[in-house]
Amino acid sequence: MTASNPTPTAPAWIESPPPKGSFRSIFKWGDPRIFKHPSQGFFEIIKERLHLHTNHFNTPEQTGYAMVPDNIKPGLSRELIHQFSSISGAENIAVDTYSRLNYSSGKSMEDIFHLREGHVNEICDLVIHPRDKNEVAQILHLCHEKKIPIHVHGGGSSVTSGLQCPNGGITLVMGTHMNRMISFNETDQTITVEPGMAGPVYEGLLNNAPEKLGAQKRYTGGHFPQSFEYSSVGGWVVTLGSGQASSYYGDAADLVISQEYVTPKGTFKTHAYPSTATGPRVDDIMIGSEGCFGILVGVTFKVFEYSPNTTRTFAFMLPDFESAARAARQISQGRFGMPSILRISDPEETEVALKMYRLDRGLLARILNFKGMQAGNMCLCMGQTEGASAFSKQVCAQVKRICKHNGGMNLTGIPMKKWFHSRFMDPYMRDALNDYGILIDTLETAVTWDRFLDVYHNTRDFIKQHEHVICMTHASHFYAQGTNLYFIIIMPMTNIHEFKRFQTGIIQRIEQNGGSLSHHHGVGRLFAPFMEQHIGQVQMAVLQALKTHFDPNGILNPGALGL
Amino acid sequence: MTASNPTPTAPAWIESPPPKGSFRSIFKWGDPRIFKHPSQGFFEIIKERLHLHTNHFNTPEQTGYAMVPDNIKPGLSRELIHQFSSISGAENIAVDTYSRLNYSSGKSMEDIFHLREGHVNEICDLVIHPRDKNEVAQILHLCHEKKIPIHVHGGGSSVTSGLQCPNGGITLVMGTHMNRMISFNETDQTITVEPGMAGPVYEGLLNNAPEKLGAQKRYTGGHFPQSFEYSSVGGWVVTLGSGQASSYYGDAADLVISQEYVTPKGTFKTHAYPSTATGPRVDDIMIGSEGCFGILVGVTFKVFEYSPNTTRTFAFMLPDFESAARAARQISQGRFGMPSILRISDPEETEVALKMYRLDRGLLARILNFKGMQAGNMCLCMGQTEGASAFSKQVCAQVKRICKHNGGMNLTGIPMKKWFHSRFMDPYMRDALNDYGILIDTLETAVTWDRFLDVYHNTRDFIKQHEHVICMTHASHFYAQGTNLYFIIIMPMTNIHEFKRFQTGIIQRIEQNGGSLSHHHGVGRLFAPFMEQHIGQVQMAVLQALKTHFDPNGILNPGALGL
Repeated sequence: MTASNPTPTAPAWIESPPPKGSFRSIFKWGDPRIFKHPSQGFFEIIKERLHLHTNHFNTPEQTGYAMVPDNIKPGLSRELIHQFSSISGAENIAVDTYSRLNYSSGKSMEDIFHLREGHVNEICDLVIHPRDKNEVAQILHLCHEKKIPIHVHGGGSSVTSGLQCPNGGITLVMGTHMNRMISFNETDQTITVEPGMAGPVYEGLLNNAPEKLGAQKRYTGGHFPQSFEYSSVGGWVVTLGSGQASSYYGDAADLVISQEYVTPKGTFKTHAYPSTATGPRVDDIMIGSEGCFGILVGVTFKVFEYSPNTTRTFAFMLPDFESAARAARQISQGRFGMPSILRISDPEETEVALKMYRLDRGLLARILNFKGMQAGNMCLCMGQTEGASAFSKQVCAQVKRICKHNGGMNLTGIPMKKWFHSRFMDPYMRDALNDYGILIDTLETAVTWDRFLDVYHNTRDFIKQHEHVICMTHASHFYAQGTNLYFIIIMPMTNIHEFKRFQTGIIQRIEQNGGSLSHHHGVGRLFAPFMEQHIGQVQMAVLQALKTHFDPNGILNPGALGL
Repeated sequence: MTASNPTPTAPAWIESPPPKGSFRSIFKWGDPRIFKHPSQGFFEIIKERLHLHTNHFNTPEQTGYAMVPDNIKPGLSRELIHQFSSISGAENIAVDTYSRLNYSSGKSMEDIFHLREGHVNEICDLVIHPRDKNEVAQILHLCHEKKIPIHVHGGGSSVTSGLQCPNGGITLVMGTHMNRMISFNETDQTITVEPGMAGPVYEGLLNNAPEKLGAQKRYTGGHFPQSFEYSSVGGWVVTLGSGQASSYYGDAADLVISQEYVTPKGTFKTHAYPSTATGPRVDDIMIGSEGCFGILVGVTFKVFEYSPNTTRTFAFMLPDFESAARAARQISQGRFGMPSILRISDPEETEVALKMYRLDRGLLARILNFKGMQAGNMCLCMGQTEGASAFSKQVCAQVKRICKHNGGMNLTGIPMKKWFHSRFMDPYMRDALNDYGILIDTLETAVTWDRFLDVYHNTRDFIKQHEHVICMTHASHFYAQGTNLYFIIIMPMTNIHEFKRFQTGIIQRIEQNGGSLSHHHGVGRLFAPFMEQHIGQVQMAVLQALKTHFDPNGILNPGALGL
């Protein structure tokens, strides 16, 4: 099961597909045949910063190669299972332990710890692959009547333990059948799809609209979360996701025009107006409800004309994080339109990035040095502009002006090319590091500009109190009033309880300094215990009132959102 | 009371301030000393289209010069009034009929009919001018305990009968004391104010931020509804208003970053993050709640750098409404940024505008004729761009390109200059026409592009079935997915019941063709009876559940929103 280690400097990263039926096949990210391990440069940093000897990487551990034993009986009567089966067909239900564990698992560090330990934790009793919204309504009706918990699996990429089933029950898998386009309206520039459609299928339809939809033009959805390849459009909406190009296209919530939900109180579809003044918008009440108020069965998104040829990229090195933050704020408040992608990295992430991209030596390094840029201070700011050609050109020119004004040195388009190449690949690297007992996890928060540096420094200081930890931080979703902060933590850690304590400390530090619990990962069960403290009792009671209205029997994704 | 009529072609429009204490002083728009009557050109159109002889304008009627009799006793015990008085001070309460009628009246056609008839309709029992949010909490607590209805008066410009008090109770007047700035944050580009601040005070603070707030730069709020001069910032938020520059700045809902509410369930303030993924956003649940869920006591808005010198205006004549709509859609979907102001007028509004602006003769008329533009078909498209200088220039160039591409003829900046001159003045004209039994009212709706022409034609056809009616229509709030339609109706009408029947017919025609009940006027009591039909029973039950949670005793603005 363990791989041999041919040289002392390069570990034998596991690069074979996980066996079918194994725990590893559940937690491994993405395509079973695709792998990514740290580059030599990054690997050297990891060893140095985490004080690990090359010997540490001799033998992978907790690899999850064990098969999932089929030994947990579903906690539902045979008669009930038969009833569900008669709704969706016997071929669309599963009661074996593997299927139930598979669809009750996401990609939170806690999920992965459990799976690597071979621990079957809080799974559903029955997996159903519904064929259409009418089946969802029938299933929900039966669950409501019999008080059976019901959960939804979209792409399975939740990092907030959103897929756990603490009380068993049903998990609906939307990706199997409910992944179709419902309608496309080129005049309105909207598309209506079922929630289980995967990101690449969605974007592929739009990019190829003339061929696939008989459209006059090509379109893009503009939503590219890091989980793009393995997330579903429904998941984007119900967890309030954001894509890498959100600064221009908006967050998932901004992209939604209309939704259709099945709830215990009935089925409804909201109107598709771009704006309306008919009281509080039920659309907004449902967005972000994480399956706690109802089950999303259709969503209408805005789409945008696709013009990849107008894209312009930029990359600058700024003297320090303060300068980078100032430049990003001035860009976001500049009233000239937004770049689609904008990222500022803190000194530690910048240092790692230069080494990963092999830009830490040679001519560039000498010029940076000559310009007075110092490793440990200097910060990368990069991104791209798009839209109509003249618009993209104008925005790019303004961004460059502001970066220069803040002491930035132009790095050409190379860093963005490198970033693009690997922008959906980093989750694969987590598996490689985890195999050697090295945790890689992220925590992210929304901040106002005013609190940006305080949240950054105080959270980072807390993380760095731990011995031997890499903490890379960036901001990547920009607004005139603030941005997000995204902390990537890499450390040796093999104890889930110790990790949870550390994670709780970070969350509290973020929250105490004025950051939100989540900018775009959602709440799930990870942040649920912190919700009331964060938004306050009165606001929490509002969410609870909605929960009680929609779901008096408490069957909809119980425990998520703290409801 | 009636004015003399010096010439047969010019009526003696009433141009003296209404007597203090009169019904007229309540319904007259705006500044008591400011008047506007139709221009000679417009007056001629009115007489011609409405088949009215000049004699019709001899004697104004139902002018509301009568004094409001102080003869309606408040339906609250002396003891209760004393309790309220001890909270806010005797000088901040009023029980006289005039005060109660004044603050229970808005600017809906129904309000005005009643006031012109000297009819005291559905007023509150007691007016209170609270001094701060703690007083609001105490007052609300007492109202909740004693089951006394409670309403809020912001600027008093509601056109949806949002201020009526069908069950009496309290009306809180926010404009008297609760009109202060709470804080200003230049780093975040946000300002926090009390809800009773009037539009011009708000904009004045921001435009003069260096002098008034010690800021480094000047700012704008970007929100300019037609009621700007006599509306309050709180009213903008709770009714989901839109300003004339919404296509760039966003609707009121888009401008709100945080809110503070006093409710029977407690007081809360939402976080000021520009975006967050912590479940359904309570901010969104409260926006548009029209005082039915709680009382807004503070609001944090986005502000924008103020740069009037970068403004560029444009005006084009397009061959027909289809071309104008196509041009506006292409602009809105162009991915080059939006003009702040964009307006397209239908042929009838275009014709009237040319006559009002005196552009219907002379050189321009001859050129239009030469270019094949025909009155009755041709449509005005005009607006302005702003923002950073290069951005504004680029957007303006793209708008001009698209207008030309759709057969448009450049009219120079003159029409926008004329429009700017009178953009807040038209409500004054309603009083002048009403004095002669001529109704002028508006109905507006949100539409998707796909339904734009159908809603327009079918609604207009219905209106035009009525004999002798001017119906001018425009769209003025643009989104990639649709816009609004704004119908201005001018007709002889002196019977409120007949008018209400006609109005109901129009609303139904709009709704049946796929338009919303309201794009930016809100719901109030005017659209309340149509809400359940419009959004459906299941969605209406969601709003009702929130109502029941916040306001179990049903005291908050009862009847508004249909709740």
